[in-house]
This record gives sequence, structure tokens and C-alpha cells, in this order.
Amino acid sequence: MSEEFPGYKGEALNFLKKAGAEIGDIIRITKNGETYEGILIPRSEYGDEKHIIIKLKSGYNVGIRVDPTTHVEKIGVGVKPTFTPPALPKQKSDLPKVAIVSTGGTIASRVDYRTGAVRPALSASDLYSVVPELSEIAIVDTEILFSLYSENITAKHWSETAKNIAKHIEKGAAGVVVAHGTDTLGYTAAALSFALQDLPVPVIMVASQRSADRPSSDAATNLIGAVKAAATAPFAEVVVAMHETVSDTSTVFHRGTKVRKCHTSRRDTFRSINATPLARTENEQITMLVEDYRERNPSRKLNLKPNFDEKVALVKFHPSLNPQIIEWYVDKGYRGIILEGTGLGHVGNYCLSAIRKATKNDVIVAMTSQCIWGRLGMNVYDTGRDLLAVGVLPLEDMLPETALVKLMWVFGQTTNIEEAKKLLTENIAHEISPRTLHE
Amino acid sequence: MSEEFPGYKGEALNFLKKAGAEIGDIIRITKNGETYEGILIPRSEYGDEKHIIIKLKSGYNVGIRVDPTTHVEKIGVGVKPTFTPPALPKQKSDLPKVAIVSTGGTIASRVDYRTGAVRPALSASDLYSVVPELSEIAIVDTEILFSLYSENITAKHWSETAKNIAKHIEKGAAGVVVAHGTDTLGYTAAALSFALQDLPVPVIMVASQRSADRPSSDAATNLIGAVKAAATAPFAEVVVAMHETVSDTSTVFHRGTKVRKCHTSRRDTFRSINATPLARTENEQITMLVEDYRERNPSRKLNLKPNFDEKVALVKFHPSLNPQIIEWYVDKGYRGIILEGTGLGHVGNYCLSAIRKATKNDVIVAMTSQCIWGRLGMNVYDTGRDLLAVGVLPLEDMLPETALVKLMWVFGQTTNIEEAKKLLTENIAHEISPRTLHE
Repeated sequence: MSEEFPGYKGEALNFLKKAGAEIGDIIRITKNGETYEGILIPRSEYGDEKHIIIKLKSGYNVGIRVDPTTHVEKIGVGVKPTFTPPALPKQKSDLPKVAIVSTGGTIASRVDYRTGAVRPALSASDLYSVVPELSEIAIVDTEILFSLYSENITAKHWSETAKNIAKHIEKGAAGVVVAHGTDTLGYTAAALSFALQDLPVPVIMVASQRSADRPSSDAATNLIGAVKAAATAPFAEVVVAMHETVSDTSTVFHRGTKVRKCHTSRRDTFRSINATPLARTENEQITMLVEDYRERNPSRKLNLKPNFDEKVALVKFHPSLNPQIIEWYVDKGYRGIILEGTGLGHVGNYCLSAIRKATKNDVIVAMTSQCIWGRLGMNVYDTGRDLLAVGVLPLEDMLPETALVKLMWVFGQTTNIEEAKKLLTENIAHEISPRTLHE
Repeated sequence: MSEEFPGYKGEALNFLKKAGAEIGDIIRITKNGETYEGILIPRSEYGDEKHIIIKLKSGYNVGIRVDPTTHVEKIGVGVKPTFTPPALPKQKSDLPKVAIVSTGGTIASRVDYRTGAVRPALSASDLYSVVPELSEIAIVDTEILFSLYSENITAKHWSETAKNIAKHIEKGAAGVVVAHGTDTLGYTAAALSFALQDLPVPVIMVASQRSADRPSSDAATNLIGAVKAAATAPFAEVVVAMHETVSDTSTVFHRGTKVRKCHTSRRDTFRSINATPLARTENEQITMLVEDYRERNPSRKLNLKPNFDEKVALVKFHPSLNPQIIEWYVDKGYRGIILEGTGLGHVGNYCLSAIRKATKNDVIVAMTSQCIWGRLGMNVYDTGRDLLAVGVLPLEDMLPETALVKLMWVFGQTTNIEEAKKLLTENIAHEISPRTLHE
């Protein structure tokens, strides 16, 4: 890796050095008779050694794979960044303090308008200059915890994030905003919901679907809604704050255990599943949408339970699934398996003996539905009853993703299997909705 | 298994024999001081040896686990079935011929009103007596191919079903209705869409979410809609016919490759994903909802391609996924892996080397999104580009379940890896929607 050429290494880096090009310079790449011209932009630290990324005139970024026939040439010098933060607005000292903790993602990053690259830039002054409205809402304390694409976040990061949030709450934050990539935001939101018990103040997870250099970006709206909620919302729960619809008018707060990314690109991609969202903001007013919630109470003592055990698997059932996969997890010392079954909570009868082997080996096997919406009903058909009989635990209307996270968390709390089963099946953070008359 | 006591075996069967009880008799079970009374009902062939199922007065069925403390007693004799089919309506000989092939599920079954048990009962006379409207629509030819809960259907059953449908089409059916449980209906619908190419007439898959003994059953409406479409619809594609909303007023036809069960219990559980449904029926009128479809043409020659290879896996990515699972599939001789990634088509960077190992071993690895809705965009972030660089194939907006089925089908057609890649990524049965301006 090179500091001058962030993200570039190996062959691609050699080409850039030979051409004497710097990030931001205009370069021309010729390969197999094709010519590409654009601004050289940095890569993430996980880039391979073969691709150079340039921003075309059209605004699109392309990756070009270098090979021995490739020629790279610098044809223009990059203009040095002209981005100068405006004078900071005068801070009102009587505003609530809000911590913004960034784990990565585009939401709280600053776009380098020269290169189109997005960089973590979470100093308070950066933030105020990009979203000046924030200075009217709160005194912002910022911290870059990770700079990760959220698909690279694992259970270890959940623990670190929970501890970091606890630290900010201990320091007197009126609320904590967590910036996070959208990809695995739902998983992390569930993790924090279990790890941060008896919250005194709200924890608002926020993200954006469109990077801030696009006119349709949802970054500013979502961030303002999130900071406002952290500062003033009446609830003290872990929520995900995102666009309610495709338009910019309202932000909705989904409970961390009931939220799922449901569209690859829409700004209203997050949905509360089998639950009403907790609250919404419109015209700067927060309206609660449910009656049963934990109220903000700064004197409440946070109960931090940040440990997770990664030896838990999610197996999505499908026709012709090889049941040996279940045995493999058992043999590997896994402690729990969440099944994503069909319909009311079923898997093919050809999986039954592998599941029996798992439960006999004190591996917890629990059922969720790949339907996503609705509740299990494992007493309705023989298949369900047979699964219950071999010890499969039905998880009601819990999301498969939340169930996975919860079981990792459960095994971070206890090694006793009976205690683990009890923890997994009882409602801790609204992950199981109460039955309604409608059902 | 016993013929007198369908589904019962082992210990449970012994208790019933000792009590001298028959199916339909009223029995009393005493266990741990609790008493249960109800009508003894049959079980599926996959029941365990421990449970006796009775229908309580309330109408609910319960399974009671027998143990050495259990006492079973016959307290009333079952009334013999009083179900007598009414006189068959006179068949109009000029109606189109429609074949109804049953693979199981409740849709085309007859409920024994004495016991509440649902049995396959697909003789034409049974069907006409349960749903007399059918005799006005078509001359029905029925066949019980399997009697399976759909979670027990595998790729082998897809092959058999495709061949059976082909046989009926060859015999001159104006359309074929396939009755199927809802649980894996989407998978089978995709399988038939690939296996039955150049269809001359429609293949209508149909199911019901509520068994016919419930007042809210959707069985009759769905079946009428399906037979009507098989007989008269202008299209010749594989579709799933189900309730459009929770009310009984309309049936909607989803394309077999774009349909997914999205709710555990609602009657409108099936949804077209990333696509408009093909057609709908309201007031007995079929309205096409898309312009681009294959028209009915009985003189077209069906191209039957019924083979599937089960050595294909679906791996749903999640934080802290163990990448060894991918290597396990490679070591087991799997030929393809469908990844259900996050967002635009991502997995954690810690999975990259396992994926590289797979592709280097000529295992096809292809990407879909666990968001379900939306399209992949694997050129947007480094993660996506890195995955493309190691040979992962992006499958656009294809459903993960459809992608799995398609790759099994692809390896049923060819062993050549380049040909397989081409088949997988090109649009065969509307599994990939064209890009729209909206995106």
C-alpha cells in the first residue's frame, strides 16, 4: 500500500509510479486499442493489485485492469483541492451534546469534489461545514472508530462499537449517532440492541444510500434527522434513521431488531418488518408511532453486554439442500444454527436426522422463516411438529438476521445451554412482536 | 406405518391399537394430570413415533407426545364419512381440456369434514363436486403425481413434474394446472420455467394458504382462476396463480422466475419481485399486465429440458460468516455456488480468498442480493470490483432462489464451464428484468 496512492499496490501501483501520476491528475490508459481518460481516484484498502480506478468525464468511476499491454500516461495535472471550510458557526453552549461515531460508509464522509472520492472526514468542523444545520441542533463530538465498508464489519466490530457508545454515554452525551454503511446496518443495529441494555438515551444509526456527490444524496437529510433525534427524541432505544419514502420529506426510525435492507439502491430501502416503526420526523417534529417504548432518562444506568460468540451459523434452507452442511457446523464446534426455513417454519424431511444430530450434541437449532414477513406456526403441519420434537426452537416472527445476531450475543453471555435457550426465545429488545388480533 | 392408522407408527401406534381406537373416533388422552379429548386424525407419512394428533372441540389440531405415563382411551365411535359427491354436472364436450397435476399441498385436496384431515382427492368427480364451477370452464383430466409437503420437493421432483406436464401437453391439453404446496412453490415455478421451453400453452401453478376447512380458504378461488387461465389465457408461460390481495376478488399470475413467498400466512403471500405480474383475473376476465409475453400457440413444439444437477449451493452471506463453508462445497465436488450477498452484491473481504479458490477450481460463483428488491451494481464499490476480478458473475436483478434453481438447471444441460457461464448470465425465462429508466 502507498500513502501517496491510497489503496494502490502491486502492478497497478507500478504503472502509476512509472507514469508519474498523482491522485487527482488526469490520466490516459490505453489497453487493447481502447483508450480511457479521467481523473485518477484513490481506492479502498481492500483493492486488488490489478485495477486502476478513474473518474470519467461522465462522472462515472471505472476500474481498468492493467496487463502487460497496458499503457498509462499522465495528461493533466490535478488541481489542488479548493475545499475550504467556511467559518464555523458560533456554537450555542446550551445545546445538548451529541456524539457521532463513524464506522464507515458514506453518510458522514466528505466528498473530495476534485476526485469524487469519499473519505472519512468527521471532525466537528468538517461536519458543520458540510451540514451547517447541525450547529443549531447540538454540540457535536465526533470520533472515527473504523473506516469500513459495512460488509467487512464482523461481530468483533459490534463489540467495539457498543463499548465506544457506552463511553460516550458515560461522558454525558444526550444521544449517540452511529454512521454505518447500509449493507450490514440491520445486523449491527440488532447487535447494538442486545448489547446496550437499559439505555438512558437514544442510539441513532444512520447511513445513506447515495453518496454525497450525487444530487439525490440522502446524506444530509438523514444526518440532520439522526442528530436531532439523538439530541431530543423522547425514546432511549437503538434505531435506524433513514428516508421514509423516496422523497426527502421525512425520516423514519426503525427499531434495531426489526429492520432490514430491502432494496439495493432505493433511499427508503430500510423497512420495519413485522412491526410499526418506532417514530418519524417530519418538519423537524418527532412523532412516536408506538406506545410501548423505553423513555429517555439520562439517570438510568446503561447495562453494557458487549460480547458475541461467532460460532453461530445461518443456514438458508432450499430444495436439495445438502444436510451434511449442518453436520459440518456441528463437527466444527459451532454452538448454534439459525435455520431460515420455508413458510411457517419448515425444512425438508431429509434434513431431520442432521438436525437431530445437532441438538443431541447440545447445538442450539432455532427456526425463522425465509418469507421474512409473518410469524412461524410450527404446530400446524407434521413437518413443524417433527422439528419441534427433535428440539428445534421456534423464534416467532423474529427476522433471520436478528436471530443470528441474537444467538451470537446469547453465547457471549452464557455457556449454559438451558440458559441460552431461555435467552434466545424470550423477548429482550422487541425482536419478537406480540401477537395481534389481525393474525 | 399402518394402513388403518395413516401416519402412525412405533409407540404412538401401540397406544392407539391398545385403545382399540380408529381414525375418526373420539379419544381421551390423559398425561401428567392433563386430559385432552378430541377426534383422532391421521398424520402425514413423515410423522415421528411419539405424537398422537387429535382435533379438539375448538377445531384446533394438537399433537400430544406419548410417554409411559400416558393413557389413551376411546370414548366415542367415529361417525362414518357422510361426504357424498353430488351428481356430476353434465360435461360440455366442446370445452377445452385442462390437466390438473397434483404434487401435494392443500389446494386440490379434499377435506374430510369428520376428521379435519386433508387428503389428496383429485379425481375429476371429487374436484367437480368440491368446486362445481370447474365443469363450466373445462374438461378436467386429473393426476396425482406426488402427495408431498412442498418442503420435501427436490430437484428430482422438478424433473418428474416437467416430464409429466410435457406428457399432458402432448396429449392435447389446452393448459396444465400444477397443484403444489406454497412453501417451495417459487423454487418449483422457476425450475419449470427453465425446463419447459417454447411452451405452446400455459402452465398454471396453484396453491392455497388456508386449508379448505377454514372459512377463509382461498383454495376454490385460486383453483377456478387457475383452470380458467389454463383453458383460455392468451399467454403460454409458467406462472403462479394466487390471490392478488387479502380479499377474494382477483387472482394474479406471477411469472415463475420472479415470484417469491413473502408472508408466512397471508393469502396474497406471493409477490412478483423486480417485475410486474404477467396478468390478473377479475370478474372472470384475464387482463395482461405486460406487453412482452409468449402467446399461446398449440402448434408450437415444446422443448423439454428436464434435467437438474443438485451439486449447486446457496450461501447467504452474513457478518462473521465462516468462509470455509465455501471451500467445503468446493471440496465436496460442488459445481456452482450462488452467493446471497449484501446490498449491490458484496460479501466481506475475508471471504475473497475462499471464493478465489472456488473459481480457480472451475466452480461457478455467482452473486445475488439478500435485499431481494433491486439490482446488483458490482462496479460501484471496490468490494464489487474485487469480486468481479476473482470471477464472480453478477446476476443483475435475479432472485437468489431463482439463481440457485437456474444454476442447477444449467449444469443439467452442459458440463462445459464457459457454456454454463453463458447460460447462467443470459436471460432465458424473464429471470432478468430489462433495466428501466426508473433505475
